[in-house]
Amino acid sequence: MSSAITATSATRPTSAAGDPPGTTPAGASQRHLISIDDLTRADIERILDRAESFAEVAGREIKKVPALRGRTIVNLFYEASTRTSSSFELAAKRLSADLVNIRSAGSSVDKGESLKDTVQTLSAYDPAAIVIRSPHAGAAQLVAGWTDAAVVNAGDGKHEHPTQALLDVFTLRRRLGSLDGVEIWIVGDVTHSRVARSNILAFTRMGARVTVAGPPTLIPRDIEALGCAATPTLERLEQADVVYVLRMQHERMTESFVPSLREYVARYQINDRRLAPGQLVMHPGPVNRGVELSAATIDSPQALIGEQVKAGVAVRMAVLYELLVGSPSPAAP
Amino acid sequence: MSSAITATSATRPTSAAGDPPGTTPAGASQRHLISIDDLTRADIERILDRAESFAEVAGREIKKVPALRGRTIVNLFYEASTRTSSSFELAAKRLSADLVNIRSAGSSVDKGESLKDTVQTLSAYDPAAIVIRSPHAGAAQLVAGWTDAAVVNAGDGKHEHPTQALLDVFTLRRRLGSLDGVEIWIVGDVTHSRVARSNILAFTRMGARVTVAGPPTLIPRDIEALGCAATPTLERLEQADVVYVLRMQHERMTESFVPSLREYVARYQINDRRLAPGQLVMHPGPVNRGVELSAATIDSPQALIGEQVKAGVAVRMAVLYELLVGSPSPAAP
Amino acid sequence: MSSAITATSATRPTSAAGDPPGTTPAGASQRHLISIDDLTRADIERILDRAESFAEVAGREIKKVPALRGRTIVNLFYEASTRTSSSFELAAKRLSADLVNIRSAGSSVDKGESLKDTVQTLSAYDPAAIVIRSPHAGAAQLVAGWTDAAVVNAGDGKHEHPTQALLDVFTLRRRLGSLDGVEIWIVGDVTHSRVARSNILAFTRMGARVTVAGPPTLIPRDIEALGCAATPTLERLEQADVVYVLRMQHERMTESFVPSLREYVARYQINDRRLAPGQLVMHPGPVNRGVELSAATIDSPQALIGEQVKAGVAVRMAVLYELLVGSPSPAAP
Repeated sequence: MSSAITATSATRPTSAAGDPPGTTPAGASQRHLISIDDLTRADIERILDRAESFAEVAGREIKKVPALRGRTIVNLFYEASTRTSSSFELAAKRLSADLVNIRSAGSSVDKGESLKDTVQTLSAYDPAAIVIRSPHAGAAQLVAGWTDAAVVNAGDGKHEHPTQALLDVFTLRRRLGSLDGVEIWIVGDVTHSRVARSNILAFTRMGARVTVAGPPTLIPRDIEALGCAATPTLERLEQADVVYVLRMQHERMTESFVPSLREYVARYQINDRRLAPGQLVMHPGPVNRGVELSAATIDSPQALIGEQVKAGVAVRMAVLYELLVGSPSPAAP
Repeated sequence: MSSAITATSATRPTSAAGDPPGTTPAGASQRHLISIDDLTRADIERILDRAESFAEVAGREIKKVPALRGRTIVNLFYEASTRTSSSFELAAKRLSADLVNIRSAGSSVDKGESLKDTVQTLSAYDPAAIVIRSPHAGAAQLVAGWTDAAVVNAGDGKHEHPTQALLDVFTLRRRLGSLDGVEIWIVGDVTHSRVARSNILAFTRMGARVTVAGPPTLIPRDIEALGCAATPTLERLEQADVVYVLRMQHERMTESFVPSLREYVARYQINDRRLAPGQLVMHPGPVNRGVELSAATIDSPQALIGEQVKAGVAVRMAVLYELLVGSPSPAAP
Repeated sequence: MSSAITATSATRPTSAAGDPPGTTPAGASQRHLISIDDLTRADIERILDRAESFAEVAGREIKKVPALRGRTIVNLFYEASTRTSSSFELAAKRLSADLVNIRSAGSSVDKGESLKDTVQTLSAYDPAAIVIRSPHAGAAQLVAGWTDAAVVNAGDGKHEHPTQALLDVFTLRRRLGSLDGVEIWIVGDVTHSRVARSNILAFTRMGARVTVAGPPTLIPRDIEALGCAATPTLERLEQADVVYVLRMQHERMTESFVPSLREYVARYQINDRRLAPGQLVMHPGPVNRGVELSAATIDSPQALIGEQVKAGVAVRMAVLYELLVGSPSPAAP
């Protein structure tokens, strides 16, 4: 695929039921970021190169460029979020766009308005981009079929969270130079994690070897189809160059996916005893201190968690820029 | 009345009880938009002409003019809203104003602070305008008596929603050239609808003939005093050039205003069977798909719903501009 | 202390338990506003002088200066607030900063993320300042130890609310020229009031004599240690030049701190019968009309409540400016 990010094809099957996308077909030139699966390695590298130049802007006192002045970006969040929402908000503002935040609390979403109607309403404002987070897998793809705006998937149910994966790749590339041949273990609740899915796709596309590890109840049977290995234990964790720890949702504990919190911690917590020197630790946040990660590990120099968050703004600026301004030939903004 | 929009008269009776407006009398030059009733046809046409020039701005890539740079606009919303709130927000930002959003959730409004105290607090910031939505009829008029800011009524209980009416007139004028002699039917729950009240006033003032239709329990007895006809059935709906469909509030169903949802749909839903070719359909949103409007009709080319929403930003920019900058002689911004 | 506002000392004891501040020590040049106790009289006067110049900006039609253009300010509010939150928001916007509002509703704060993790996340955006309101005493001090940003305490539990005190001093200095020798009575629930604590410190530092008055159950035993007198009755209220009335939290009524609302009103309400001509009345808002203050007194010319709110934006602009830009020598912005 040679477009800067990806063109949504109206014929591409969607994983969600209901109204098919493409009833209001997006213009052929309109580009979205729905899934890492739509990106080539060259696409990813172009975004990361752009993000490097925006990271430089973030280091200045005036952290702002006029690239999207007078353009409108809608943040449409149907789930609670601090990091992703504020990261996109700052990205939009540092590009000088006008941002409108819509959250499910205090909006017509509370009146039971359908996603389609909400999107069509917001599209009437002619936004340059709609950033959508939804508890439903496939929501971002559907939105792309209902609007002329560029759509950025900020997390759709258990499906994908592509900007998280891009910022994780950005963080690792900065630290290691390249992901080629790097061994990455993704540890925890893979089944319910959109971050796991996007990151397996992104890490493997960039040349890394990925192993997922966690309780068998929390690893999908067919996960190897995504190009990774799977294991129920951390026995061979010393193979990993990078340990990517997933958030353990408290509610899973009461759903009998895990015998008990105590047992989960005993078998899968990443801490000083399990880690070897030089192994890097990542986490998409927010962390449950003392559950999937020990407090000491969170604050250790092996953890890249702060760098991940920091990368978020630059990478999201780059995604918005590539979708709305970018040309196929990468050039400094 | 020859002022650009309308001067609030301290002697004009108010429909709401409690503190009379005018205890902090607004300056003679201060102008508000409280009710369509305060506007002459010339006032409305001047706002619409201004809105045309802002609609042109909205078509540009840089959707922004510096008209209100450095001025403060407060959005004070005591009811959930996506469209009206975000539409005013974008209008303010595209005029380069600084916007402060206050919603009842997460604010001192939760501490039981009175509307008067909240308005006096916000007025201390010397805002150019306060946009107020309230569940109480008469709230906007009261606010106008407590502040030196221009007050825009964004919906006050069952009383009025004047900017909705203005954007509806704008939408129709664009489509039809003029409203003179146009037959408009307003269908549904007229009794509980501030939109119905403002639109009857605005449509008739612009030369249209208005008929309201709906269950007798949902049509006020004295509605003809506003200058419209009333009918309990859709038998003569073919007379209409425009069918303006009101939202059916789900809660009315349980209040025995309507025998049942099924019966309401059978007797009053606007759908392909009832509509003649060429009739236009409008709705203030959000729509209950399959209740007051069929899904097919919502998405048909006869529906102007998207155009209404789109008109919202331009019309609200025009209202703010006329109140805060505009001179009696209309000129392009 | 000669720094413009105050340097947080990593060795200064903190009143809150848990992680000690300074684990990520702030740079020696980083300055915070945590407590009035950290400010000299000269510090306060420099802030007030700066605020005078920003009050002049607020009187212009274009209420904006470019001082913080392209810099990021985070508003992190864990308690409902209209005035303080919107006042800081406007202050940031009028300084041309990019503002991100984080509230506990609709954010990861709901997911149980710890304050430390939230602050570290937000710090990755490299904000110039974090404005924090928290129900926990000592929270702002802790935050200062976790971030490189300047930290402004916007209220931490029952501990302090320093910008409220500064705006109150600003309001009185404008009215009276100086606070030297002025008699100020602070009336009401002193025990649970961060405003009382900050204001006793600020008023006395500026040369005023302070007396606190209220039910013995609501006056801390050791309050005189802060440099004020204490009395359980309003018998000698005529001594006061200024009566500073505290908000009576409704929940205290049910906690048996006060026999009954009726008795509280009878013994401590400030109203026309108790006030002498010429005495000034202040209140931090929001007011319980008819409880701690009579409605007539709120609206009387003796009340400075509106001027206090108005001062809030200018004083908060001055605090942000002094922390982020200001040099020890005061000069007009």
